[in-house]
Amino acid sequence: MATQRADEEGDVRRRIEQLIDGIRAMDLDRVMASYATDVVSFDVEPPLEHVGAEAKRKNWVKVFSMYERPLDYEIRDLSVAVGADVAFARGFVRISGRLKDGPRTSHWLRSTLGLRRIDGRWLIVHDQVSVPVDVASGQALLNLEP
Amino acid sequence: MATQRADEEGDVRRRIEQLIDGIRAMDLDRVMASYATDVVSFDVEPPLEHVGAEAKRKNWVKVFSMYERPLDYEIRDLSVAVGADVAFARGFVRISGRLKDGPRTSHWLRSTLGLRRIDGRWLIVHDQVSVPVDVASGQALLNLEP
Repeated sequence: MATQRADEEGDVRRRIEQLIDGIRAMDLDRVMASYATDVVSFDVEPPLEHVGAEAKRKNWVKVFSMYERPLDYEIRDLSVAVGADVAFARGFVRISGRLKDGPRTSHWLRSTLGLRRIDGRWLIVHDQVSVPVDVASGQALLNLEP
Repeated sequence: MATQRADEEGDVRRRIEQLIDGIRAMDLDRVMASYATDVVSFDVEPPLEHVGAEAKRKNWVKVFSMYERPLDYEIRDLSVAVGADVAFARGFVRISGRLKDGPRTSHWLRSTLGLRRIDGRWLIVHDQVSVPVDVASGQALLNLEP
């Protein structure tokens, strides 16, 4: 049982690594291979939720269109909880690169992923990615570091 | 097995209802009964993470100090995924009330909860609560509605 859990945690971590590799490569098909068709995403940008893989894909198209290659994307302090066919993970992700016709930018974001094992494959069915907010001023805090 | 899963989903939903009831009552002890001692929270307000129940408690003290009674707190479109001893949930939460010496406010937030069953009790070990951001202007979007 403990060994099985360890195997499953390894599978979940590999899924997340594949997602990150796909993002770094700006490879939409590799990125989308990590998501379930009915993924519901609470992403950095509006609206409140992006429902379904097609909406998630459009959002990645938008992100990739903003940056020159290479795009850098890393995860820090990844923590994974795995139970049978359900798992969640959290960590800080840093997205950095040169904006098209613009400066280099770098932002640390908080990322939470919810996964299910569907037909033997771990897929992301939910995510939330955000930065904190200074509620008094309404300003997003895009320059915090872990 | 299916019945067991349904029971567990019911337990997770009751845990979330108890959290919401505690928030509405501004009852810190009831609220904190829902969190594991090592909860890691990616909350609306900075810093990037609040580590441990004491940090989470301080954040609720701050929220409760901002509002007159009664505080209203509701969850919409709650979705729960439960697997053995690990679960996650997502939904929209609306926090609304009259600020002390200020106007009535109402904000819809995205909430994701990660839970573990510890000694037979489901506890929140992770959460992320946020609003989307207009990245170009750096403004948090505090007035979106689901």
